Amino acid sequence: MMLFPDRLNAAIDAKGSPAMVGLDPRLDSLPEPFASQVLAGPTQAAAALMQYHRALIDVLAPHIAIIKPQSAFFEVLGAAGFAALADACAYAKDQGLLVLMDAKRGDIGSTSEAYASAFLGGGFQNAFPKCDALTINPYLGSDACDPFLTAAKNNSSGLFFLVKTSNPGAGLFQNHGTPPLADVVARQVENWGKASLGAGGWSAVGAVVGATRPQELAHFRALMPNAILLLPGFGFQGGTANGLSAAFDKHGHGAVVNASRSILYAYKREDLLHLPDWQTRTEAAVVEMKQQLAAVSVQS
Amino acid sequence: MMLFPDRLNAAIDAKGSPAMVGLDPRLDSLPEPFASQVLAGPTQAAAALMQYHRALIDVLAPHIAIIKPQSAFFEVLGAAGFAALADACAYAKDQGLLVLMDAKRGDIGSTSEAYASAFLGGGFQNAFPKCDALTINPYLGSDACDPFLTAAKNNSSGLFFLVKTSNPGAGLFQNHGTPPLADVVARQVENWGKASLGAGGWSAVGAVVGATRPQELAHFRALMPNAILLLPGFGFQGGTANGLSAAFDKHGHGAVVNASRSILYAYKREDLLHLPDWQTRTEAAVVEMKQQLAAVSVQS
Repeated sequence: MMLFPDRLNAAIDAKGSPAMVGLDPRLDSLPEPFASQVLAGPTQAAAALMQYHRALIDVLAPHIAIIKPQSAFFEVLGAAGFAALADACAYAKDQGLLVLMDAKRGDIGSTSEAYASAFLGGGFQNAFPKCDALTINPYLGSDACDPFLTAAKNNSSGLFFLVKTSNPGAGLFQNHGTPPLADVVARQVENWGKASLGAGGWSAVGAVVGATRPQELAHFRALMPNAILLLPGFGFQGGTANGLSAAFDKHGHGAVVNASRSILYAYKREDLLHLPDWQTRTEAAVVEMKQQLAAVSVQS
Repeated sequence: MMLFPDRLNAAIDAKGSPAMVGLDPRLDSLPEPFASQVLAGPTQAAAALMQYHRALIDVLAPHIAIIKPQSAFFEVLGAAGFAALADACAYAKDQGLLVLMDAKRGDIGSTSEAYASAFLGGGFQNAFPKCDALTINPYLGSDACDPFLTAAKNNSSGLFFLVKTSNPGAGLFQNHGTPPLADVVARQVENWGKASLGAGGWSAVGAVVGATRPQELAHFRALMPNAILLLPGFGFQGGTANGLSAAFDKHGHGAVVNASRSILYAYKREDLLHLPDWQTRTEAAVVEMKQQLAAVSVQS
């Protein structure tokens, strides 16, 4: 199988955009009929999520390269939610989308091995769809991250290590020390990634860098010239397309830009209410996001 | 409901030990007949884990106060594994054990809220058993940790923040800066915990501190005088009872000491092979661990 960065860049070229949509199914914010269906209980809610995500993926698949399911919003539904998460991943893969599992896992060696197997290796005897990539929390250190690196190598998957996150309080620990911890993590990520370079020099080992701080992007790009950057928070978290250009090369490669709520809640937007249903409003929001990003990723 | 530290200390007094056992079901290391049963596939493996953990909990419940299921080893079985995890938690609670979910979650605010709901709040409409406590990765910062603190307050649960982990490579990021990052996290944990002190001054906000470095215990105890310490790695990871006394007060409170593989694999121990089955060997290993710990927690 092609390396993750090559698969991702081919898909970005095919869809013409580095846009990524996060599947963050907040149960109180789903469009109808799903919002009503979830009230019947966890099992019915999980069934509603399966239907909703299949329909959502049908909308997204023609337009974008990759989706990012957020595990937390499925785990609130227990085992049934985990089944809905698996279903969304499998269906997305069937529709030709890449799947980045946003689970932010990280533990000591043998436990990291289990998490890596669960999300990148298909789990035990294909218990879970093989995802194309996984987000990792690096706090536990090098030996805790090694099993993820090994699994990514064995499965041609990608990893996105948390370097600098997009939340307002991110600096409390990530800015600690001189140089700041996030810089130390960034250098480590770059170092880990040197063993898995694809075409164009992009690595299977990427990094999460908060897009709400565009002024930091050039800094982290310089620290990690080979890492694909996951830029979260386009839209609701306050990020905009301005200032993202440092993340991209002249081919429009080097980053994926995530939006979750600004796409998932587009069905409530007044200026889109003239469109007949949540699917067409969602599609309009995705197309709009792609247009906003297009200016950035071609000019850089 | 009583605060978590008070519930925990009452249970420790009742069982006469701060010993905790981790449920880390490595599928290739289960005793028979479970080891054979898992080979049939994920669903059968999950069913075998349910049976195994119920039998294991029957062995453990008379002897210890609290168990620590490790989510990763269930997630490799997908949705069926998540159901087995829920079953183990529910059964343990029914047998009077406290349950510390070792999931090491952490994300930005609204996502942390979902994780906190999933494991501490019973999930959506009781989709998952309410656990008594949860391990948290603090890397994302203060606002990312707040939802866990809120959920712990609302549900009288405990939190154990990763401060210094027990793996050999822990220092790569945790020792970064002056003072080291782990000290900064420790001070934050102590600060967070001041709002939730129970009897004896112990807080609902605890910390994970690697027991393989006993010389550091006094240091972290001084930084976090109110935090209950989760000391992992007793046994296989190289920790011993020597040097743990700094963690405990004169009542034997202030820490829980975890063992996973040294208990779960006791059924293979040559010196225990004279005992008739895996249950009696496991029980012997637990009793032995309690004896080793007794010397420490009373003398301090």
